[in-house]
Amino acid sequence: MTQVSATAAGMAYIDGRYMPVAEAAIPITDWGYRRSDVTYDVVGVRQGHFFRLDDHISRFRASMNAFRLKPRETDEDIKLILHRCVALSGLRDAYVAMDCLRGRPPAGAPYHPAYARNYITAFAVPWISLLQPDVMARGAHLVVAETVRISARSVDPTAKNFHWADLTRGQFEAHDRGADFCVLLAEDATVTEGPGFNIFVVSNGRIATPDSGVLEGITRRSVIELCGGLGLPIDVRPVPVAELRDADEIFLSTTAGGVMPATRIDGRIMSNDRPGPISRQVHDAFWSRRAEGWHATPVDYAAS
Amino acid sequence: MTQVSATAAGMAYIDGRYMPVAEAAIPITDWGYRRSDVTYDVVGVRQGHFFRLDDHISRFRASMNAFRLKPRETDEDIKLILHRCVALSGLRDAYVAMDCLRGRPPAGAPYHPAYARNYITAFAVPWISLLQPDVMARGAHLVVAETVRISARSVDPTAKNFHWADLTRGQFEAHDRGADFCVLLAEDATVTEGPGFNIFVVSNGRIATPDSGVLEGITRRSVIELCGGLGLPIDVRPVPVAELRDADEIFLSTTAGGVMPATRIDGRIMSNDRPGPISRQVHDAFWSRRAEGWHATPVDYAAS
Repeated sequence: MTQVSATAAGMAYIDGRYMPVAEAAIPITDWGYRRSDVTYDVVGVRQGHFFRLDDHISRFRASMNAFRLKPRETDEDIKLILHRCVALSGLRDAYVAMDCLRGRPPAGAPYHPAYARNYITAFAVPWISLLQPDVMARGAHLVVAETVRISARSVDPTAKNFHWADLTRGQFEAHDRGADFCVLLAEDATVTEGPGFNIFVVSNGRIATPDSGVLEGITRRSVIELCGGLGLPIDVRPVPVAELRDADEIFLSTTAGGVMPATRIDGRIMSNDRPGPISRQVHDAFWSRRAEGWHATPVDYAAS
Repeated sequence: MTQVSATAAGMAYIDGRYMPVAEAAIPITDWGYRRSDVTYDVVGVRQGHFFRLDDHISRFRASMNAFRLKPRETDEDIKLILHRCVALSGLRDAYVAMDCLRGRPPAGAPYHPAYARNYITAFAVPWISLLQPDVMARGAHLVVAETVRISARSVDPTAKNFHWADLTRGQFEAHDRGADFCVLLAEDATVTEGPGFNIFVVSNGRIATPDSGVLEGITRRSVIELCGGLGLPIDVRPVPVAELRDADEIFLSTTAGGVMPATRIDGRIMSNDRPGPISRQVHDAFWSRRAEGWHATPVDYAAS
């Protein structure tokens, strides 16, 4: 592999050093892996611009605080690292991840997370869409999983984390039933979220999205703002599963894909099996605002 | 670092290759890290012998099946890998871990765990005890955490996993309250487990340990067998938190430490702040049986 293709495949930062992403790895004994004691965030770059960079950095810091992770890097340091990963890779469209890992207590210290030195990693790779283009065009097929979302009493879902075994089990349920994605419920049978996305339900012209037990997605927040501007009524409140199953339309929001319409829920076809009118309106508004430079920060390609 | 010290610090296996543990790492984009989509097991080596090697391998395979992980290695292959990691390191007392990771779907495949190639890692490092010797002598100080254990409806606790954010949060609660370890309850306020150990409660001469919502520990199983032989009555059943808080004695079981007495629970002192008589009896019986070669498999040091 030539140097050019190695960098175009993505560049990473680990605790002070930059390298091709293919060389970036986590020690097998690190508690960031071994206890999944780590938080992360992901920001998108389209056409050379970050989307809501400051909002992602703020959320990342809030997640680190929630897990009591204190790396040496400041927020400004982290922004420079992300610029540099994108600049070194030369990517115009990129999926940019940042992690903060616990590390591991040094030899002789108590075997407790309080004694570990926490550190930052980051990487930029070519843009990933959660949905392949054909699925994006036809709309996602969803199923309500039997697996229940990990409770907020156990793990704070607003602090972004890699505790995905429930979502992974739900994805196997979806796969077994011929669907694309699972939706997980809370113990009280209200809707939470799916693997990497928030959920919006449209009924009788009103939109609703769960208020708790979910990641407070940056794209979710953008959709809520957009709906206000478009005059689409939207409620942030508990969403019972019956409302999801009976919805006129459903759409999803995620950094890795923006606004994604769904067309089937538990086998039931919505909107003649095509993305519905409100989903399309929100989708189109999202991308036209993005094209206008909404919340955009140009990547500093001189940072390489 | 010389070659000798690099191998004595531990040796690892990753997907077909052996290396010093300091060089063993997980790709930053691997779902085994990035979604904690991984299972593991840990077996101890004391005085050149594995303890219950076949039982650990059987549980590891059951965990892999529970998470639908299918590596290319058979159980016999995995045993050989573990022997070889210990033999290459030359360690007589070792903590030997084995993981099976999801991997990641190849480029172009659907972004779903079913399309990933799963693989095995393993490593042997010098023996780790969860308790430092002074804590082992005085007995562990425990607190009941406010954080609730991740529900079995979300993640199967009998399939060993790295979803430890609840245990880590509990460990910070313990640290803030001047204790060594947290104990987590289930949603119904029954006792589950702590970070890396099962729990036994002694009241009026009878021992009890939780029957569900916990890892089915190999050391736990050994304690249950031992108590039968010692004529100590033991019940495997739900244990209400009040029974823990009012216990005459509490002890813990773990691969990384064996049988560990506790002397304080939520600040209350048990047995005059010293390991209680039944805890000591079980502790001593466990180690004397171990010294006799109970469930021991000699490490094949020629495997290097």
